[in-house]
Amino acid sequence: MERQDVDIALQEIRDALKARDWDRAAVLVEALRPPDQAELFGELALDEQDRLLPQLELEDSADILEKLEEEKAAEVAQRLSPAELTSILSEMEPDEAADLLGDLTPARAAQALARLEEADEIRPFLVYPDESAGGLMTTAEVVLHQDMTAAEAISHLRAAAPDAETVYYLFVVDWREHLVGVVSLRQLVVAPPRTSIGEIMDADVISVEAHDDQEVAARLMSRYDVVALPVVDAQGHMLGVITHDDLVEVLEEEATEDIFRLGGVPEEHPADVALPAALRTRLPWLVLNLLTAMVSALVLSIFEGTIARVAVLAAFFPIVAGVSGSAGTQSLTVTVRGLALGEISPGEGWRTLGREVLIGLANGVAVGVLIALIALAWRGSPALGLVVGAATLLNLIAAAIAGALVPIGLQTLDVDPALASPILVTTITDTFGYFVYLGLATLTISVLVQTR
Amino acid sequence: MERQDVDIALQEIRDALKARDWDRAAVLVEALRPPDQAELFGELALDEQDRLLPQLELEDSADILEKLEEEKAAEVAQRLSPAELTSILSEMEPDEAADLLGDLTPARAAQALARLEEADEIRPFLVYPDESAGGLMTTAEVVLHQDMTAAEAISHLRAAAPDAETVYYLFVVDWREHLVGVVSLRQLVVAPPRTSIGEIMDADVISVEAHDDQEVAARLMSRYDVVALPVVDAQGHMLGVITHDDLVEVLEEEATEDIFRLGGVPEEHPADVALPAALRTRLPWLVLNLLTAMVSALVLSIFEGTIARVAVLAAFFPIVAGVSGSAGTQSLTVTVRGLALGEISPGEGWRTLGREVLIGLANGVAVGVLIALIALAWRGSPALGLVVGAATLLNLIAAAIAGALVPIGLQTLDVDPALASPILVTTITDTFGYFVYLGLATLTISVLVQTR
Repeated sequence: MERQDVDIALQEIRDALKARDWDRAAVLVEALRPPDQAELFGELALDEQDRLLPQLELEDSADILEKLEEEKAAEVAQRLSPAELTSILSEMEPDEAADLLGDLTPARAAQALARLEEADEIRPFLVYPDESAGGLMTTAEVVLHQDMTAAEAISHLRAAAPDAETVYYLFVVDWREHLVGVVSLRQLVVAPPRTSIGEIMDADVISVEAHDDQEVAARLMSRYDVVALPVVDAQGHMLGVITHDDLVEVLEEEATEDIFRLGGVPEEHPADVALPAALRTRLPWLVLNLLTAMVSALVLSIFEGTIARVAVLAAFFPIVAGVSGSAGTQSLTVTVRGLALGEISPGEGWRTLGREVLIGLANGVAVGVLIALIALAWRGSPALGLVVGAATLLNLIAAAIAGALVPIGLQTLDVDPALASPILVTTITDTFGYFVYLGLATLTISVLVQTR
Repeated sequence: MERQDVDIALQEIRDALKARDWDRAAVLVEALRPPDQAELFGELALDEQDRLLPQLELEDSADILEKLEEEKAAEVAQRLSPAELTSILSEMEPDEAADLLGDLTPARAAQALARLEEADEIRPFLVYPDESAGGLMTTAEVVLHQDMTAAEAISHLRAAAPDAETVYYLFVVDWREHLVGVVSLRQLVVAPPRTSIGEIMDADVISVEAHDDQEVAARLMSRYDVVALPVVDAQGHMLGVITHDDLVEVLEEEATEDIFRLGGVPEEHPADVALPAALRTRLPWLVLNLLTAMVSALVLSIFEGTIARVAVLAAFFPIVAGVSGSAGTQSLTVTVRGLALGEISPGEGWRTLGREVLIGLANGVAVGVLIALIALAWRGSPALGLVVGAATLLNLIAAAIAGALVPIGLQTLDVDPALASPILVTTITDTFGYFVYLGLATLTISVLVQTR
């Protein structure tokens, strides 16, 4: 139902833009919800964007820049006049404004910040990296003091509420502004008016430090089902709150990052990023793959004599390399995701390794026997069957060891396992695979030559 | 800070269990938060679990079964006495109880349901599949009628609140129980007491149908930043609400499912599932890989004569197959994730294909020239360099086409692109790669033989 409405609006807006009727387009855009506004805006041509934006209400422009993908928002902001940019920034949430400023050229960011009345609200966020808890928090929350009464808290809330991004969980501080508890709006509403906040609050409050990574904050929120997570400094002073919508964004970002890295796209980018940017991320990775494939090529070249004498060996390369590559990928996928979700802690590395070796052994016996039978049936050579089968068994065990050890090792070295594991594991399984297979073939060459 | 507390508690509980002091262990478990209780419980041996559970408060037992991984919870429940199971089920949220019942053997589930007083609350959830919006919702929400006043709504809320999982967004129905709007607790608190709900509610409410997939619900919630999504039947009757914690769970589940499927582990399972279950998921996939690798093997066997005459060709197999495999994986990763996040709609398939072909062409020229130069430098043969370079260029274009077309095609056929794309794309790039490479080599064999 909603989806259809958006599609219809989209079509109407495109018609208005084709007719160069900017006013009508602006009216149609303003009737949509912010995420839909941003999606639609992102699909326009650059000159259409530049013409449309000044026609929109400032608040809608700010919403669009907040919801657009980072790179696109920065491109749009970079093309705005300084006056336009300043007025839009002043409508944005301070944390979002800081993120956008961080994506602009330093000169342009400094210029905008100098003109901006709200600069003092935004500056604290520039201190924390984009991907830290501090960079994610909002400061627009309502903070209660522990010696307020419930009635005082509610009137404080009534006065402040219109600006607050989150009022359903209210954090409580003491006179030194240290975080000491949390009280829900529900508790506040049902409490006797004269009770003090200190009495009704829950002192067991989960918080995160501003310099912690955003993933730490997201894991805490998802684990303990909290919709608002307070951020404190090293001394425990309350700084801000990370809200539910930030959590969802971080979880999607981190999952996308892992998926892209496992797929050999080292830097996350939206599916429709400009071609040069896509090439800059993907080409170096292919060249790196090329260089690691050279290692296998060198191993193969050692055995050229064997291949020349028994060319049928080459026909089994895709099987030996392909199956152990797949098995290695399975092991590393389970291990990388287990590490990311905290199911495997680095201390349990040996247990994971043991499991994977057992799985590799069982799979190796099953697949090895199957491959040996296929080789025998296809080529009528028991010797070939034995070599191919034994190589497969050994390779699957090696693949399991590499698939478990590499991600755990990288995690210990503080390298993202999702980034480097696939290429390392593939290099290991390929190189070891060819070496074992052709090594066994070379040892048994006198028999293989006769029976081919 | 919190993490350390959990670790310390964990150590103490292990000590208590070693001393077989079940009372002390129970006290220590009950001091923890439910997610920590569940994690710890899941790490115990089966006999320890069976001894500990009866010592815990029913509410804690219910929390633990709700938070445990599905398979583990079902195993524990399966071993409980019927009386114990019934009392724990009656403490669980109805939607969670239904999920657990669905994981038990039918006989055991029927037996528990017959004994259960709350059976009528649970039964509606059994109608909807586990992974549908209806299977995810909770019915314990407070529903307001549009002709209540704000004051009536607040006293209704005071009376009902203790049982409500979500009270921050309240959904409004008309006299036929049709969903007509939403009002926030904040709006209710600040509204003049005698205003009617119909006046202050927001009629523009996003909802989902009970039979829709849980992923549809999660996308809506994440796109529009809502912490509670109402679920309706086909006629628009209000049935229940999907809450924030469910959303987070679904997002993590769906991301994990995609990551596992892309990594050749067709069924998601926790990193420490029992070995036979792990083998049941992984082995059939390896066998399928083996069969598809046979296609490449058949192609290679056609060219055995060529390989026997110029064995050096084999040394470049890992490079030709490896690099185009990586490029295909890049294309399919970007396409699969773009489809999952809704960045690519199936209608935009041709645009995605066009982009990927251009990227494949650019990468192909760059990597092809590099490989040709490496072959020339290493083997001193311009002919070999040309064959390897040209094959790489053509393969990278083919990889790009396959990487974009296969996931889009699967999506159109309603097959999960993450599940089948990697194996199909690899089969295509491998088979095509060997065919083009050895085909070119066979065509130029007279030159290659001279210069090797």
